[in-house]
Amino acid sequence: MPAAPELAARLLACASVTPARGPVFDALESMLVPLGFTCHRFIAGNAVENCLAIRPGPPGSRHFAFAGHLDVVPAGEGWSGDAFVPEVRGPLLYGRGAVDMKGAIACFVAACASIPADAGTISLIITGDEEGEAIHGTRALIAWMSERAIRPDLCLVGEPTSVHRLGDTMKIGRRGSVNLWLEVAGREGHVAYPHLADNPAPRLVALLAELDALVLDGGTDWFQPSNLEITEIAIGNPATNVIPGRASARISIRFNDLHTGQALADRVAAIAARHGGTARAVISGEPFLTAPGAFSQLVADAVQAEVGLVPEASTSGGTSDARFLTALCPVIELGLNNATMHKRDEAVALDDLHALTNIYRRVAAAALEPGVAA
Amino acid sequence: MPAAPELAARLLACASVTPARGPVFDALESMLVPLGFTCHRFIAGNAVENCLAIRPGPPGSRHFAFAGHLDVVPAGEGWSGDAFVPEVRGPLLYGRGAVDMKGAIACFVAACASIPADAGTISLIITGDEEGEAIHGTRALIAWMSERAIRPDLCLVGEPTSVHRLGDTMKIGRRGSVNLWLEVAGREGHVAYPHLADNPAPRLVALLAELDALVLDGGTDWFQPSNLEITEIAIGNPATNVIPGRASARISIRFNDLHTGQALADRVAAIAARHGGTARAVISGEPFLTAPGAFSQLVADAVQAEVGLVPEASTSGGTSDARFLTALCPVIELGLNNATMHKRDEAVALDDLHALTNIYRRVAAAALEPGVAA
Repeated sequence: MPAAPELAARLLACASVTPARGPVFDALESMLVPLGFTCHRFIAGNAVENCLAIRPGPPGSRHFAFAGHLDVVPAGEGWSGDAFVPEVRGPLLYGRGAVDMKGAIACFVAACASIPADAGTISLIITGDEEGEAIHGTRALIAWMSERAIRPDLCLVGEPTSVHRLGDTMKIGRRGSVNLWLEVAGREGHVAYPHLADNPAPRLVALLAELDALVLDGGTDWFQPSNLEITEIAIGNPATNVIPGRASARISIRFNDLHTGQALADRVAAIAARHGGTARAVISGEPFLTAPGAFSQLVADAVQAEVGLVPEASTSGGTSDARFLTALCPVIELGLNNATMHKRDEAVALDDLHALTNIYRRVAAAALEPGVAA
Repeated sequence: MPAAPELAARLLACASVTPARGPVFDALESMLVPLGFTCHRFIAGNAVENCLAIRPGPPGSRHFAFAGHLDVVPAGEGWSGDAFVPEVRGPLLYGRGAVDMKGAIACFVAACASIPADAGTISLIITGDEEGEAIHGTRALIAWMSERAIRPDLCLVGEPTSVHRLGDTMKIGRRGSVNLWLEVAGREGHVAYPHLADNPAPRLVALLAELDALVLDGGTDWFQPSNLEITEIAIGNPATNVIPGRASARISIRFNDLHTGQALADRVAAIAARHGGTARAVISGEPFLTAPGAFSQLVADAVQAEVGLVPEASTSGGTSDARFLTALCPVIELGLNNATMHKRDEAVALDDLHALTNIYRRVAAAALEPGVAA
């Protein structure tokens, strides 16, 4: 089995801009089958490919899962080379997805190569739709697994969590996310005759002022305070002498585990109603937390053994597929340096690929030991 | 000289959608020259025609001016006939501009026909740009007149001021109007990392809340309270996970003679600055008032003698060219019923054209009497 850099290069050579299917999954399957994995691949939503690769251990053994995605964001402009022609220059391997997260998937594979088949069940939960809508990706995989009663004991997501040095940060939780579309209706009219009109703008302004002043919480031991941002306000009235007939806005709330998306949606809707408005919510993810314990200790030990750092247990930042995987089992995220993710000249250090392979091997081996809980 | 309905029909047959020039002015000139008027026509701003028609009285006599516009708003949809083919159906004459305000201009002409040439100087200040930008219209006419030291003693604008019955309302003043474009800058960022961004939306919301709460005044003897309306708010951010980098809004203030446009602009700019924003003002007109006195009494007497009503002295509604003409002399507005103005099937009652001709004749005759002031 080649080492992680070569495996990563083979994945990077596939231009798998989200949503991904086909060749990049073929490449992954060709790496895993020689290791004894069976790849269950299926298309969801007519566009997205998903793959559950599984290598069953002895009956009664534990089940550890790696999770990640093979789709990437578009290359964008300004690359030094071709974003989909992987290239090693000095200590770095360049290519779109090098850190987010084909590099980590290559490390999954390389780690699995050195874990004995009788150590336990290992699976790779891999989607082609994480960077896009994420509707037919990991959620579809989880549904597929649930139908077959396939349930790992612990799961590690390979998102690029490291900030300055490989292993300095792992995510033990993520905030939830809900977007709300606010709408206030009035009656259009001429500014010279305001008594014949009903301007919705002052009510929208009062609604937004009240929402902006909300203190949702003061944070928890593991989470920073929940936060609300006004991301859009729109009336769309080009006429200087017209009182508009409707006004709308959009807010985004990132919230910790003191809340649920639905409770926040209900709360905002009640405030909107008091200002004569409505609120339509789209909950993109509930928060999750794998509170510090045996699982996070095991990951921290693996990092420390390999690179001499104790990773910070973070819950900051955006959402990831861990918001869905948490429905299966305890989840922790640990991966490469995120400095170049989504940017031009995305690149990963070859040394980091080797080190992360070893970390993943240690994590998987320890997680498969009997009796390790979250 | 034909009566007002026939003169009106000749003007209505010209499709003089704003800005107007050419044929509709030819038609007017052909009516006025036989009455002893000289028509000084000129093009302003490469698009707008203006006409000062004047019939000088004996040396030392007074000068009374009628003022109005020959341009019309577009026909729009849904007319029963052709908006630019005038048609009498029953008691009404139909056509775009019938009440706003070719009908009134026809009455000006018909009234002039019965005023002796030695009664005094009479002029018609007629623009082709009132319904549009109004930049090269009456203002250009006033400049043209000022250069030649032509200055009426009193002026009557023929805008359709009547609401339910001909003559029930005259305008003795109009509010001023200023629009302000507000802008608040911030720093764009990701909603998951608000500490790295600076959302301008809450500051814009606070700015708008403060502006909306302003009480500019409680009205005056002649004016209703000044009023501020939020007419637009815009961020223009389609991404639910992005904190916007700028936010903007627009307000419209209609204000009475306790304010000037510039003072209001300065006041709003100071409030905007306290919220980290800016305000750019466009003053479309200062308020004017011809306080009740000899001129308004003379108009009221003419109305009462002809139709048996005492007109209400109003200052409500939108702006008109009287905002400019007030620089020349005292101005009052009196005209046809405004029920159908700017609407489909705009129409004027033939009886009203006859009655308004007589009212205008009485007004002009009385205004030319020596010693009548505002």
